[in-house]
Amino acid sequence: MITSIENKQLKNIKALLDRSSARKKQGLFVAEGVRMFEETPDELIDRIYVSESFEDKNRTLFESKVKMHPYEVVEDGIFKRLSDTNTPQGVLVTVRMPRYDEDRIIPKDPGHTPESVEGDDRQTAAKAQHGTGDYLVLNKIQDPGNLGTMIRTAEAAGVRAVIMDEGCADIFNPKVIRSTMGSIYRVPFLITKDLLGLMIKMKGQGVSFIAGELNGSNFFEAKRPEGPIGILIGNEGNGLDKEVIEASDIRLRIPMEGEVSSLNAAVSAALFMFFMRYLYK
Amino acid sequence: MITSIENKQLKNIKALLDRSSARKKQGLFVAEGVRMFEETPDELIDRIYVSESFEDKNRTLFESKVKMHPYEVVEDGIFKRLSDTNTPQGVLVTVRMPRYDEDRIIPKDPGHTPESVEGDDRQTAAKAQHGTGDYLVLNKIQDPGNLGTMIRTAEAAGVRAVIMDEGCADIFNPKVIRSTMGSIYRVPFLITKDLLGLMIKMKGQGVSFIAGELNGSNFFEAKRPEGPIGILIGNEGNGLDKEVIEASDIRLRIPMEGEVSSLNAAVSAALFMFFMRYLYK
Repeated sequence: MITSIENKQLKNIKALLDRSSARKKQGLFVAEGVRMFEETPDELIDRIYVSESFEDKNRTLFESKVKMHPYEVVEDGIFKRLSDTNTPQGVLVTVRMPRYDEDRIIPKDPGHTPESVEGDDRQTAAKAQHGTGDYLVLNKIQDPGNLGTMIRTAEAAGVRAVIMDEGCADIFNPKVIRSTMGSIYRVPFLITKDLLGLMIKMKGQGVSFIAGELNGSNFFEAKRPEGPIGILIGNEGNGLDKEVIEASDIRLRIPMEGEVSSLNAAVSAALFMFFMRYLYK
Repeated sequence: MITSIENKQLKNIKALLDRSSARKKQGLFVAEGVRMFEETPDELIDRIYVSESFEDKNRTLFESKVKMHPYEVVEDGIFKRLSDTNTPQGVLVTVRMPRYDEDRIIPKDPGHTPESVEGDDRQTAAKAQHGTGDYLVLNKIQDPGNLGTMIRTAEAAGVRAVIMDEGCADIFNPKVIRSTMGSIYRVPFLITKDLLGLMIKMKGQGVSFIAGELNGSNFFEAKRPEGPIGILIGNEGNGLDKEVIEASDIRLRIPMEGEVSSLNAAVSAALFMFFMRYLYK
């Protein structure tokens, strides 16, 4: 049992929780809590850490996983000091970062959605399109909670992949991981140094880009372009970069009542993803 | 200038930031940052506190407000210790709680929406309905960020009022206030001890309640009932209380792909509010 916060392994967990550079160097991140522990695919688990009392109470819960993976028991008070959360659940896992090939995420022929249809046929069209899915493309999203929520929503909305530029918060930040509620393991993602270059490449393969933008035309009157779509969502304070807006095909604005000047970025992304999937004309 | 954290006024601000009971007793809450300062209506301002360097740099910004209100200058280091945020902007305001009459929020005749219409007429119908607006009704929403985001989204979606039961996070919690981005001053709200009783009363006045519920029917195939709607959103972990679901008129589920078991509560609320406003059949 580990009984000191000065233990080498625990010091490394602190580094993985606190520093993006440590995560990058080791190719590891930390997932905390029962839910995230259960969601973590076996092949990505590096090592399991449980508090003393968690081990006592939950032997059956992690018995099967423990058989396959190394694990350490940590004294309760020490575990609490280690945790990134206010109410630690007594289990955390160090996890190998999932990686996706750009070629797998952006196939050469991204397929085509059905032709635009109206009225009652929308459901059918949406279903026929299921195999394809859209892309969520994030430009300098800063808030870890927003980023995690977007990944969770993207899975629910049947998004094919999430693409982020390097100005986004680190996807392996513990707050992002927590907010994904496990979707981090199921939604393919790509982090790009050159968002504009990637957009141009994807446009060549039939992807249309829709910019969520305050000066755009009314979102609820939009017609969906044929083929797959990249939904562009920008920074919480400043929106999308000018060049990104210029490279987009369509600019759409969610109509807003009152004196609200913008919506929360995760809320905007959710409205775009669900409405593009189910409600385009 | 205030130079000690032991100053009586500053100790009171700490209490207002930290304790719901102190806020309730004094009828005051704290709004932090330039944006919230500018959004605060003059008639609600109790007292303004600025850091020394903020006063130097922003005389013009708050000159007009300062003329009307008492203000105190706080030594920079002390202001930083006082703040609820990691990067304090140097201005905070103590604010009198806005209060709304139940009778103003829930009029005896809540009016009627246009009859259900289809196709291109939906926009027209939505516009005609503008004067009415729906209700967002919250059952044990726990996360302050979610609650604040919901109030912000409610204003944008033209919601008439937000109704909360006493199981919700305190609306005057500094994290809620921040997340509203100023909507706290513009969206009427009501906190009720007896949500079921209020629902029954509102139903008697023609309001239909829609429960966001995992076992409901498909959200995107729903028909909007006539008259105003109350959109029910439940606790982040456990959803709506059983009695609340039973008292609702319609249960709707947002369809989800993948292995997602639920959406973030603020995301669900946003989809319901915008869908009910713009896209009902």
